[in-house]
Amino acid sequence: MQVDVIGTVAEATTDDLQHRTVIVIDALRATSTLTTALAHGASGVVPVETVQQAKQEQRPGDLLGGERFCKKIPGFDLGNSPIEYELNAVRGRRIIMTTTNGTRAIQKSQRASRVLAGSFLNGRACAAAAFGLQRDVTILCAGTQDVFSWEDGLCAGMIAEELLTFTEAGLNDLGLALLAGYRHEQGDIASALLATASGKRLARLGFKDDVLFCSQRNAFDLAPVLQDGVLVPLALAAR
Amino acid sequence: MQVDVIGTVAEATTDDLQHRTVIVIDALRATSTLTTALAHGASGVVPVETVQQAKQEQRPGDLLGGERFCKKIPGFDLGNSPIEYELNAVRGRRIIMTTTNGTRAIQKSQRASRVLAGSFLNGRACAAAAFGLQRDVTILCAGTQDVFSWEDGLCAGMIAEELLTFTEAGLNDLGLALLAGYRHEQGDIASALLATASGKRLARLGFKDDVLFCSQRNAFDLAPVLQDGVLVPLALAAR
Repeated sequence: MQVDVIGTVAEATTDDLQHRTVIVIDALRATSTLTTALAHGASGVVPVETVQQAKQEQRPGDLLGGERFCKKIPGFDLGNSPIEYELNAVRGRRIIMTTTNGTRAIQKSQRASRVLAGSFLNGRACAAAAFGLQRDVTILCAGTQDVFSWEDGLCAGMIAEELLTFTEAGLNDLGLALLAGYRHEQGDIASALLATASGKRLARLGFKDDVLFCSQRNAFDLAPVLQDGVLVPLALAAR
Repeated sequence: MQVDVIGTVAEATTDDLQHRTVIVIDALRATSTLTTALAHGASGVVPVETVQQAKQEQRPGDLLGGERFCKKIPGFDLGNSPIEYELNAVRGRRIIMTTTNGTRAIQKSQRASRVLAGSFLNGRACAAAAFGLQRDVTILCAGTQDVFSWEDGLCAGMIAEELLTFTEAGLNDLGLALLAGYRHEQGDIASALLATASGKRLARLGFKDDVLFCSQRNAFDLAPVLQDGVLVPLALAAR
């Protein structure tokens, strides 16, 4: 099995996606948040690129979630804080979600064989799911506005490490780099996340608890998979 | 001081270069080779992009050096192996050099305040020189055909580590990632280089000794700086 890590959405080529399992990571916070929503019983998460698309997609009972400039969008039910999705009643509800980087990365990955959403919260579950799908893997770091984000790269390193517990995978050069970085930082993921540009920005805006929440490894045994445009837990999806 | 690492030449923007000290890294092998040439007394190294430019630039007494597909160019005096520049008489000679990635990266950096050429062989000297120049630093990884190369990233991590011995620098996210990766791998740089795509290709082509040579840290106390299109040791350049 080959495992290639791509540092930003802009760098992903068709070859990186087609006939592969793609694991999209936006660890602070979109893929952490949607994993939390599904873990708390949301029936599905629909990633869309724009606020307008979110409103058009909404059907009775759906909740609107997401952010612009890290903050909840006016008129939306929920922001992009995973903690909100723990505290609020999302069980049985569909979430229509738009965020700056993460949902765009998921949209761009649609030509993959399968798209999974990875984070520290569910890295092992994603690795297990990707191993089960038996295709080469692309780990796609969402990044921030087409610039590499260490929080996504660190999570890519974690997922590569988890994949290596299942199989002898070949890693591309960025994968080797991020695996080494993860191995160095694995004793204190929270501090590493707080040192990143996104972590610092979130802490400044009052979301430090989100960063700490997102740093928890394998809190959820759940791999969100994209099926007909909706992220659902892999076990519920037709494999 | 701010220290930003850029993963490939294609990603470098004007803002990454202007008013900054740029340290270009093509650890396997161009910046290692030209550092070795200068350390053995070459009077200067002229980086050019094409074979034709190299021939046009050549004056009596100059040596032509470089590679295409990792191999010596037909009609050239020297290839891109640092060991060749140790064994052959380069003292007092100007080297006109063209390589696939490294010389292009140097060319692209010309709008920087200063351009230095870094490698494991002279990482500390480059960091000291960059600190002395007192500008923000961009560490530009040459990469391979616009794809990130771990050998360059690992060397960027080493140079960031050396810079931190001089000053409290701020690092961008890629810099944080590569510093962590370097700290994990620093006990055995040679093995890390041999695991990279370039390292494996070079070993396959019979250049394993080059990879081992290039893994030596701080073998030379010399920072090549670009002056009027020619790389010369910093002490010899007008500061």
